[in-house]
Amino acid sequence: MEDIGRIIQDIHDQIHADADWGIPAQYIPELAGVAPDQFAISVATADGRCWSAGRSRQPFSIQSISKVFALIATLGRIGEQLWTRVGREPTRTAFDSIMLLESDGGRPPNPFVNAGAIVTTDALLSGREPSQALAEILGLIRAMAETDEIYINNLVADSERRTGERNKAIAHYLASHGNLSNEADLTLGTYFHQCAIEMTTEQLAMSGRTLAGLDCAPRTISALHAKRANALMMTCGHYDASGEFAFQVGLPGKSGVGGGILLIAPRTASIAIWSPGLNGYGNSHAGTRAAAMLAKATGWSVF
Amino acid sequence: MEDIGRIIQDIHDQIHADADWGIPAQYIPELAGVAPDQFAISVATADGRCWSAGRSRQPFSIQSISKVFALIATLGRIGEQLWTRVGREPTRTAFDSIMLLESDGGRPPNPFVNAGAIVTTDALLSGREPSQALAEILGLIRAMAETDEIYINNLVADSERRTGERNKAIAHYLASHGNLSNEADLTLGTYFHQCAIEMTTEQLAMSGRTLAGLDCAPRTISALHAKRANALMMTCGHYDASGEFAFQVGLPGKSGVGGGILLIAPRTASIAIWSPGLNGYGNSHAGTRAAAMLAKATGWSVF
Amino acid sequence: MEDIGRIIQDIHDQIHADADWGIPAQYIPELAGVAPDQFAISVATADGRCWSAGRSRQPFSIQSISKVFALIATLGRIGEQLWTRVGREPTRTAFDSIMLLESDGGRPPNPFVNAGAIVTTDALLSGREPSQALAEILGLIRAMAETDEIYINNLVADSERRTGERNKAIAHYLASHGNLSNEADLTLGTYFHQCAIEMTTEQLAMSGRTLAGLDCAPRTISALHAKRANALMMTCGHYDASGEFAFQVGLPGKSGVGGGILLIAPRTASIAIWSPGLNGYGNSHAGTRAAAMLAKATGWSVF
Amino acid sequence: MEDIGRIIQDIHDQIHADADWGIPAQYIPELAGVAPDQFAISVATADGRCWSAGRSRQPFSIQSISKVFALIATLGRIGEQLWTRVGREPTRTAFDSIMLLESDGGRPPNPFVNAGAIVTTDALLSGREPSQALAEILGLIRAMAETDEIYINNLVADSERRTGERNKAIAHYLASHGNLSNEADLTLGTYFHQCAIEMTTEQLAMSGRTLAGLDCAPRTISALHAKRANALMMTCGHYDASGEFAFQVGLPGKSGVGGGILLIAPRTASIAIWSPGLNGYGNSHAGTRAAAMLAKATGWSVF
Repeated sequence: MEDIGRIIQDIHDQIHADADWGIPAQYIPELAGVAPDQFAISVATADGRCWSAGRSRQPFSIQSISKVFALIATLGRIGEQLWTRVGREPTRTAFDSIMLLESDGGRPPNPFVNAGAIVTTDALLSGREPSQALAEILGLIRAMAETDEIYINNLVADSERRTGERNKAIAHYLASHGNLSNEADLTLGTYFHQCAIEMTTEQLAMSGRTLAGLDCAPRTISALHAKRANALMMTCGHYDASGEFAFQVGLPGKSGVGGGILLIAPRTASIAIWSPGLNGYGNSHAGTRAAAMLAKATGWSVF
Repeated sequence: MEDIGRIIQDIHDQIHADADWGIPAQYIPELAGVAPDQFAISVATADGRCWSAGRSRQPFSIQSISKVFALIATLGRIGEQLWTRVGREPTRTAFDSIMLLESDGGRPPNPFVNAGAIVTTDALLSGREPSQALAEILGLIRAMAETDEIYINNLVADSERRTGERNKAIAHYLASHGNLSNEADLTLGTYFHQCAIEMTTEQLAMSGRTLAGLDCAPRTISALHAKRANALMMTCGHYDASGEFAFQVGLPGKSGVGGGILLIAPRTASIAIWSPGLNGYGNSHAGTRAAAMLAKATGWSVF
Repeated sequence: MEDIGRIIQDIHDQIHADADWGIPAQYIPELAGVAPDQFAISVATADGRCWSAGRSRQPFSIQSISKVFALIATLGRIGEQLWTRVGREPTRTAFDSIMLLESDGGRPPNPFVNAGAIVTTDALLSGREPSQALAEILGLIRAMAETDEIYINNLVADSERRTGERNKAIAHYLASHGNLSNEADLTLGTYFHQCAIEMTTEQLAMSGRTLAGLDCAPRTISALHAKRANALMMTCGHYDASGEFAFQVGLPGKSGVGGGILLIAPRTASIAIWSPGLNGYGNSHAGTRAAAMLAKATGWSVF
Repeated sequence: MEDIGRIIQDIHDQIHADADWGIPAQYIPELAGVAPDQFAISVATADGRCWSAGRSRQPFSIQSISKVFALIATLGRIGEQLWTRVGREPTRTAFDSIMLLESDGGRPPNPFVNAGAIVTTDALLSGREPSQALAEILGLIRAMAETDEIYINNLVADSERRTGERNKAIAHYLASHGNLSNEADLTLGTYFHQCAIEMTTEQLAMSGRTLAGLDCAPRTISALHAKRANALMMTCGHYDASGEFAFQVGLPGKSGVGGGILLIAPRTASIAIWSPGLNGYGNSHAGTRAAAMLAKATGWSVF
């Protein structure tokens, strides 16, 4: 395990040497302005230590990585009922696609595309105030990461609320099929705030220990829910590039358009990577390469 | 032409004898409550007369038939520019489909599916108050029908505003592709009110004379716009049953979920039919059959 | 009618002056080698005369225009039964698309896309030898055109048989859904030969008189079948550019990748146009423009 | 490990007690006639032993499981080049879908849907005689299973050749996009024979040891290719039920319409299950349940 520190420092150096950063998400002004030449990686290991390289204490917008935490919170609250409203299958279409909703009668294919995440958040909300649902998600993340220093960036949330026409379309489409139990605006408001949670790679790596089933992890979620979240991250975690990620990296992961990636090596480690420039699938460009380097250097792979 | 009176009375009698009415649109409470066993037909002929049978003075919600008038008004206002934002092709998908928008980058296939009509209304609105755009459409219809006794049913409009989740999804989706120039709510409000215009078959038949190019028609729109509206009604007027309608009836037409059908026999007659029960495509069940009977009995067909 | 001669000569001159020819179909070697700067137009009028300009006695491959004749022959042979196997709706997808077959369980949307034409030819064949079905189609065309000088180009047919992988895919796909009653190879062989029929614009214009319902036309097909063929040509005759053609030209028509267009002005004239260069939809580039010019100059439009 | 024998015997007993068998594949006569109430399970463990319950010495048609072996053989022969012709992403569409080929320009989404497997076999064939490619696949399987008693059932292959219209459509469609390097019939003939390989669950479990990376396995394929085959089995191995299988079972697997399932517990065991009745996705009905039972009882899961 002592090697981990060296491995991730090498990856950090290589990524900076490559200087091939991609472009930060443009549709949210607060994200578009982030300098692309930034990189951080943190690895929480079974012995309770956390190794880092790069800007591992720089908070970034976790965006879609929040879908994993919302899923866990919702499964904890309503259990298997969730699956009556959302599927568990990967899809070839993009993260913000609305097409499949039409052919599938308003049932999103999985909880990690936007439509599925909106349904998940709607199920978590279930008639409560958005602030209550958000407190629940934030509370879960803080408990998993064992720190209270995790916050929502309201500027980012407000920005998405103003510009998120595609997500509004998805929410109303879900409502037209009766697959939304709250007012579209209420569910969307909650969703936009959840996406605007900011974390450092250190915090994110720490929060993933439970998913990795590490002994040092706080007992916040059931082992079964952790396994299932991993299965969904493996098959659906990177949208229409999920198969490629499984092929190249071989570990369950979830990416966000803020440039973060949460990566789980079951029973071995929890990894967080961040670099804000994106590739064509909306996943971190340098981060995806770093994940492949780490998998190769460590031999960590579930296969 | 004296025979027309007898022909439509026979059709009226046959439709009542068949007593095969379909089911009124269920998604708008105000329409769902309409008794299905109603029928009216009116035929405005080139000699300036208007023949009717059944409840031809009963106002009904013209719904999608308003798309024809909105199209004409918009073409009159901004001309061919409209076609940069909406296509002219029929589609196999349903009137409220959102799928094609995704593959076509937010450009609706034609102005008679909901997405295309919403873009058309948005283009007509172009920064003005909804009341101004609505006054323009209503003014055009009244001029075409030569009567001021045509109104908007605000109860129906409000009902659609409350329940129209699918149309909200479409509007926000268009906005996400930059194909909406007003706030989604403003365009939708205008659209819902335009759909809630009520007319009798007498009024609707009279209003169609210009489209038919009848000499007795008031000179409200250009002959070219009339021809082109007819072409679009022929290829796209009945959604995914347009080919079938052309095949069976052979005349340009436009249906609405209120149970109305506007039918044009170029240079010969303008026909309006109403019966509120619908078939599986959202077109009037008895009305579609009556249109075929009329085409057969009169030999009116453009082919 | 005396003006027709002048109008089409003007169109001919304009087309040559434009010198904007498109590119001949590349997938069949025999068609690819045709010089693109050729143009012909012929108009058969109700008075029994036929007006021509350009290379109106140059035979060309009618290709998909044969679908109209095959449809008429099949309707004549098995009548309305055909519609259990093929639909009557236009489609947004390309002429050689196989996608819709999958969602529609192997039932082609209309008889003018390749899949629908293959089913139509298969229905005409119905257990007979290909030579018999071909003799029937060829006999019908000759009778409609009142000339025996119309032949199949076997080189073109053989070339399509060798290269027509897409059509083979379509045929086997239809067979997989039980919508082919002969061996795929047998039906395809017939279809490839039917497409390889060669006609001049003079012959093609003469053959269309029955479809136009001209008094001078030989009585070869029923008036009802003619009307219905026209309706299908209007809504489906130019594949995914059918709406546009109806909008711009306003007449039923059918194009072929050989560069031919058959155009019907009901009760007025039958028009044939040829220019081998194609536009992006697989329709004659100069021919489509010539059709619009003719419609404008003559005022012929069904709308 | 001593418990494995008891666990699989319990699963065997439970499956027979349930007597919920599904229906064998109907489209191949030789498969349709198989009695559905049969079950076998074999588990090869790292200590070199192979545990079995039920009819573990009854050969069955491995069908799509052969795609795994063909993939490994092809990767061994041409390496990463294969990925220029076939993708690595799961898909929502069925195993025999042709739709995605159209939108993706003839590039199958992954090597485990039929289209992708046909391309893989075509790449393995690469100009050779079918018998040579088949000898290579069969030789690989025999080496992996350490037995020569594995054969092709020619009756099944001939039956598929006669009835496989859908696969013929796919092959010609691939050819129309230039994604087939041999004659369609030649590639299909090879593919049908490869699918007609028969194995027992004992043989299949033994053959999977290399994929599981067991020390006792013969060194027939590279560890990297084994890992990657596992990744593809995880994301794409059960067609449009792959996500569900990952969620419920948590192990890479590949099913065939003959009712077989190959399941890999990396570094732990190789499992083969057989029961010929299928569920709605074309996967073994009892076999899928047995896989979930095994995963639960053993705790084997990659997550």
